Amino acid sequence: MRALVFHGPGRTSWQDVPDPAIKDAADAIVRVDAVTICGTDLHIVKGDVPEVTPGRVLGHEAVGTVVETGGDVRTVRPGDRVLISCISACGRCRFCREARYGQCRGGGGWVLGHTIDGTQAEYVRVPFADLSVHPLPSALPSHEAVLLADIFPTSYEVGVLNGRVRPGDTVVVVGAGPIGLAAIATASLYSPYRTIAVDLAASRLAAARDLGADATAGAREEPEKLVEDLTDGLGADVVIEAVGVPEAFEMCTRMVRPGGRVANIGVHGKPATLHLEDLWIKDVTLTTGLVDTRSTPMLLRMMAAGRLPGAAMVTHRFALDAMEEAYHVFSRAGETGALKVVLAGPPPHDAVAVPPQEQ
Amino acid sequence: MRALVFHGPGRTSWQDVPDPAIKDAADAIVRVDAVTICGTDLHIVKGDVPEVTPGRVLGHEAVGTVVETGGDVRTVRPGDRVLISCISACGRCRFCREARYGQCRGGGGWVLGHTIDGTQAEYVRVPFADLSVHPLPSALPSHEAVLLADIFPTSYEVGVLNGRVRPGDTVVVVGAGPIGLAAIATASLYSPYRTIAVDLAASRLAAARDLGADATAGAREEPEKLVEDLTDGLGADVVIEAVGVPEAFEMCTRMVRPGGRVANIGVHGKPATLHLEDLWIKDVTLTTGLVDTRSTPMLLRMMAAGRLPGAAMVTHRFALDAMEEAYHVFSRAGETGALKVVLAGPPPHDAVAVPPQEQ
Amino acid sequence: MRALVFHGPGRTSWQDVPDPAIKDAADAIVRVDAVTICGTDLHIVKGDVPEVTPGRVLGHEAVGTVVETGGDVRTVRPGDRVLISCISACGRCRFCREARYGQCRGGGGWVLGHTIDGTQAEYVRVPFADLSVHPLPSALPSHEAVLLADIFPTSYEVGVLNGRVRPGDTVVVVGAGPIGLAAIATASLYSPYRTIAVDLAASRLAAARDLGADATAGAREEPEKLVEDLTDGLGADVVIEAVGVPEAFEMCTRMVRPGGRVANIGVHGKPATLHLEDLWIKDVTLTTGLVDTRSTPMLLRMMAAGRLPGAAMVTHRFALDAMEEAYHVFSRAGETGALKVVLAGPPPHDAVAVPPQEQ
Amino acid sequence: MRALVFHGPGRTSWQDVPDPAIKDAADAIVRVDAVTICGTDLHIVKGDVPEVTPGRVLGHEAVGTVVETGGDVRTVRPGDRVLISCISACGRCRFCREARYGQCRGGGGWVLGHTIDGTQAEYVRVPFADLSVHPLPSALPSHEAVLLADIFPTSYEVGVLNGRVRPGDTVVVVGAGPIGLAAIATASLYSPYRTIAVDLAASRLAAARDLGADATAGAREEPEKLVEDLTDGLGADVVIEAVGVPEAFEMCTRMVRPGGRVANIGVHGKPATLHLEDLWIKDVTLTTGLVDTRSTPMLLRMMAAGRLPGAAMVTHRFALDAMEEAYHVFSRAGETGALKVVLAGPPPHDAVAVPPQEQ
Repeated sequence: MRALVFHGPGRTSWQDVPDPAIKDAADAIVRVDAVTICGTDLHIVKGDVPEVTPGRVLGHEAVGTVVETGGDVRTVRPGDRVLISCISACGRCRFCREARYGQCRGGGGWVLGHTIDGTQAEYVRVPFADLSVHPLPSALPSHEAVLLADIFPTSYEVGVLNGRVRPGDTVVVVGAGPIGLAAIATASLYSPYRTIAVDLAASRLAAARDLGADATAGAREEPEKLVEDLTDGLGADVVIEAVGVPEAFEMCTRMVRPGGRVANIGVHGKPATLHLEDLWIKDVTLTTGLVDTRSTPMLLRMMAAGRLPGAAMVTHRFALDAMEEAYHVFSRAGETGALKVVLAGPPPHDAVAVPPQEQ
Repeated sequence: MRALVFHGPGRTSWQDVPDPAIKDAADAIVRVDAVTICGTDLHIVKGDVPEVTPGRVLGHEAVGTVVETGGDVRTVRPGDRVLISCISACGRCRFCREARYGQCRGGGGWVLGHTIDGTQAEYVRVPFADLSVHPLPSALPSHEAVLLADIFPTSYEVGVLNGRVRPGDTVVVVGAGPIGLAAIATASLYSPYRTIAVDLAASRLAAARDLGADATAGAREEPEKLVEDLTDGLGADVVIEAVGVPEAFEMCTRMVRPGGRVANIGVHGKPATLHLEDLWIKDVTLTTGLVDTRSTPMLLRMMAAGRLPGAAMVTHRFALDAMEEAYHVFSRAGETGALKVVLAGPPPHDAVAVPPQEQ
Repeated sequence: MRALVFHGPGRTSWQDVPDPAIKDAADAIVRVDAVTICGTDLHIVKGDVPEVTPGRVLGHEAVGTVVETGGDVRTVRPGDRVLISCISACGRCRFCREARYGQCRGGGGWVLGHTIDGTQAEYVRVPFADLSVHPLPSALPSHEAVLLADIFPTSYEVGVLNGRVRPGDTVVVVGAGPIGLAAIATASLYSPYRTIAVDLAASRLAAARDLGADATAGAREEPEKLVEDLTDGLGADVVIEAVGVPEAFEMCTRMVRPGGRVANIGVHGKPATLHLEDLWIKDVTLTTGLVDTRSTPMLLRMMAAGRLPGAAMVTHRFALDAMEEAYHVFSRAGETGALKVVLAGPPPHDAVAVPPQEQ
Repeated sequence: MRALVFHGPGRTSWQDVPDPAIKDAADAIVRVDAVTICGTDLHIVKGDVPEVTPGRVLGHEAVGTVVETGGDVRTVRPGDRVLISCISACGRCRFCREARYGQCRGGGGWVLGHTIDGTQAEYVRVPFADLSVHPLPSALPSHEAVLLADIFPTSYEVGVLNGRVRPGDTVVVVGAGPIGLAAIATASLYSPYRTIAVDLAASRLAAARDLGADATAGAREEPEKLVEDLTDGLGADVVIEAVGVPEAFEMCTRMVRPGGRVANIGVHGKPATLHLEDLWIKDVTLTTGLVDTRSTPMLLRMMAAGRLPGAAMVTHRFALDAMEEAYHVFSRAGETGALKVVLAGPPPHDAVAVPPQEQ
């Protein structure tokens, strides 16, 4: 089959590799019908994630069709159309028993495209299939459903739930890339009074408004002043960091009100400065986390009911074998305006015809 | 009356000042029967707290007897023996309505010995008396009850409750001064599996063991290794910072397990480094806070029932007019072994005779 | 002044009574600009609430203008336009300190129109004014704001919050009178997957659909079957009782799924049968409660921002001195289709002109 | 092998039956080293549980040694000494993913000695072994560990956790049989201010005091008056029902304070009357439930550390083939004073010698 293989920093190729095969009785082999590229994949390609070694097939998000299952797999079978979650779960370790699958100690967690071969390929082996894939209703198009593999549960669990967004809150989302936009969309499930988006790019702030932000601020245009003015000087109830750089995180800790929450979603490569000399007295809660995907069944139900935006976040679509071009477009988001790019295998991969104007 | 007056960095004196008087209908004037000195008072004397201006009477903890009340005061009256909480509460602002009294916006919060005259005096004016003092049962000695003014509710609310200690947890308390020791004692209300105390001083680690720590580690003797060994490499469920320096806070963030909580109680004067490059993926919750004293009635009930240690934390007792000597002893805790020092006015201030051996 | 006076079961009159006067330094006297009638008032008139004695002025919901305040009142002053909450709060007792104002032990709780004279009058004395009235933004019309005195906080706190409605839930509301309709509206703040309304009256089910119910069932048309069908036989996540009769409550306990919640809002006069022989094994949580109105500031903010329906629930409007006619219309809701009836004093009582077509 | 077989109401025999065998790849076969009898078993024998059909081997609690495992079992292997939980868990259904194993929809839940053959036998087949057995530390004696199969997690999860016992609470436990006593013991993990036990039998009240109850009341000696007196007329914070009859449940609902919780553990065969005419206004939370055993690993750790009583609850010990005698003693608890009876297979079943005086 064809797959995107990492060959060391800066080097990848869409090339022939052996087809995956069942290695454990809990495995499933899934044909990839739709796949996307994550900001984390760009970090991997740059060489920022040393756990990813040369030869690895990348990708941790996909929709596909089960083609083979190991003897232990009980809940899906060949022919089932499924979402492949970015997180696999052994289901037996102490963390899985708490539904904290992202911290799985039994061979799961974030493994796809990280420590085992991933989804940017024609086929993928998914370990612990029973707890790691989710059957999809036929009416939900693959190019939307694929957003449930990572960005929707990540923004919801690590941003909205960790930040404990409540009806009537003022929520600030710093960073309006795909994760930040998904945080704006999923925060709306809790009816905040007002959501404020902060980003450097005007195009992303426009997208934020489209997805429900009530106010926006350019990152260089005094966003802290805006938050202060809108909250009578008190600060925001919840601030969600969706960038992953120290300056953004530190801004978040200045924007939060006494008694408020800062929920970090950003993937950080460097330490930040925590101004405990100001914060010690301020009753602030700061959270970090990897997604557990325990909310995926609920989010899937809501997306299928039209209650979560999907298509609005997909700016570019490609055939699966245009993988290298898709990376090229996605990695230059500033120029191309890319939010999520979706690659799809040849039809009939999807029960729902996608009207041309969406492509 | 006599009171301890701050005269600028490094300068205080026990001197004559005018008696306090009712200024607002919600005030009470209380005769001080027992008072203690807080580590924060030492910071003030050093000049670290610029909000405290020369001329201020210090002190925010006391037990006393009400001598006069303003017209709005409904729940206490002259003659009542009361605990004076370190936090005053207007009872009307949005934070008081959530029982977040430490963040009071209506003139309360931490004001005693900070922005208004405090308790290290023969008499003190307590604002918003209805929500700021607590009647005491006669059987509870003043030199024990005074610990409920600050260190017990602070360690319980900001350490144990913010850290969400649960039965069966492994809890690490970094810093075994009075606040850390009170955290060990109040954590035990939730029956942790094991509590580990970390400090530089062997005498404080011994006190920690007396108050219920199951294991102790010298701060320079690989405490992180001990925590790792005792938790099969996973880390502690809850880590409580009770020091207030960056190194201690940073150690806490390395000791916590995935999914665990770091509760900061320490008063910090400098920023710390937050290693988000390690923590972003680790599902960690960090909290800060000032005490609200909403738990004071419960802690008072438990102490009166003998369920919280009191006398064990009082190492030195003085007459009230030995205030300067008491500061001298408390400020050299390394040499004197002082934990809490209690100063008492002349009898009959206390219904319960204190046996000499406790002094 | 004129007021609606209860003279024993079945007998009330709109008559002259003495003007109210300040009796306690925490009181305020408020001129009533808009007032409504509650289902509970009908029970009182029938004689079902023996605590209400002859001579009592009825009513516990209003919007008005402060005309006089006692010496302790700090947060409002004459001229302020305010919401009068159905719950008064002393702010000092153990329940008020937990924001459980409905259970106030210090002279508050539900007292207006119950144990002291109420709001169906030209003027009313409000005890503990600081914690019992809420200043109103000028843009919020009185005939909408008056719904925040009782039905919105009651349905939200006792129904939605007690029932712990969460995004993606299936919520059933049994009873689509004013409280049930407000429960449907406030449940939507948590984005349930689906809300199902049950009532006997087709007109109320139509109103339920207008306010956001996704499905409706006549109470005699197998509502349990509908819930079963829509939930794959599992039952609803949350069932809210908004009727107050045993049959309705018992239906709720049959409709809830294992692990689900039944939140009772209904005012009951008789016991119900609790089928513990079925429920003991089912992990069900049942809650009861009187509103605390701790959510009122948030709901007020949301209504002012157009995020809660107000006008849609007001079916009839009257002048204040048409009180007896308003009772007549409201008490025959089956015929008149009345949901909430609002009575208003003579202008200028309201900064916002109400267009005639709304009346 | 020998096993206790149910032959219809009132008829059981300890007899030869075929040895169990692996039927599913997730099964384990366990040799029973220690087993106990539950009050529920007595109900089954009486014929109260129609799901249990003639021919069924009874029993849902045991400690044993794994002798064979199916191909999917990953966490235990032959030779491992394990606790057999009363609840089996498929690990894949929506309820298992929430750790609500008692409600498992995938073939687990309470099945042992109920819908499949149970533990009162020399060997037992345990389905879904990975999530249904717990490896035991060698130092924990089998006759104590067997109490972790049901009564400790049941009393803790369904009583203490559902009832949300908090430090400083007044807790009433109605029913001081094995489950009620275990509720008293596990409630103490949250340091209530006071625990009050209610029962008909003086011997059980004595056992309650031994296990930490601060006060006791005979069920016919005005227990409600005692609770009222001890709580200044307010009622208890938490009331735990551990009987299973309507009268006991109804007493619980009268003993609870406004804002309090009633947690039902009792297995009920008949409906109770719920006095909603009193309770609707009282802010009461009532819970029911079957144990999930999600707390078992924590309780096991605490018991191994000597932090939970074990031996104190075992009043009688028998050899495994004295099963019928053990039922006889246990079913006449009023005469025999039996709390828990433990039956053990022939040594060497237990690494720890039990001193004779405990037997």
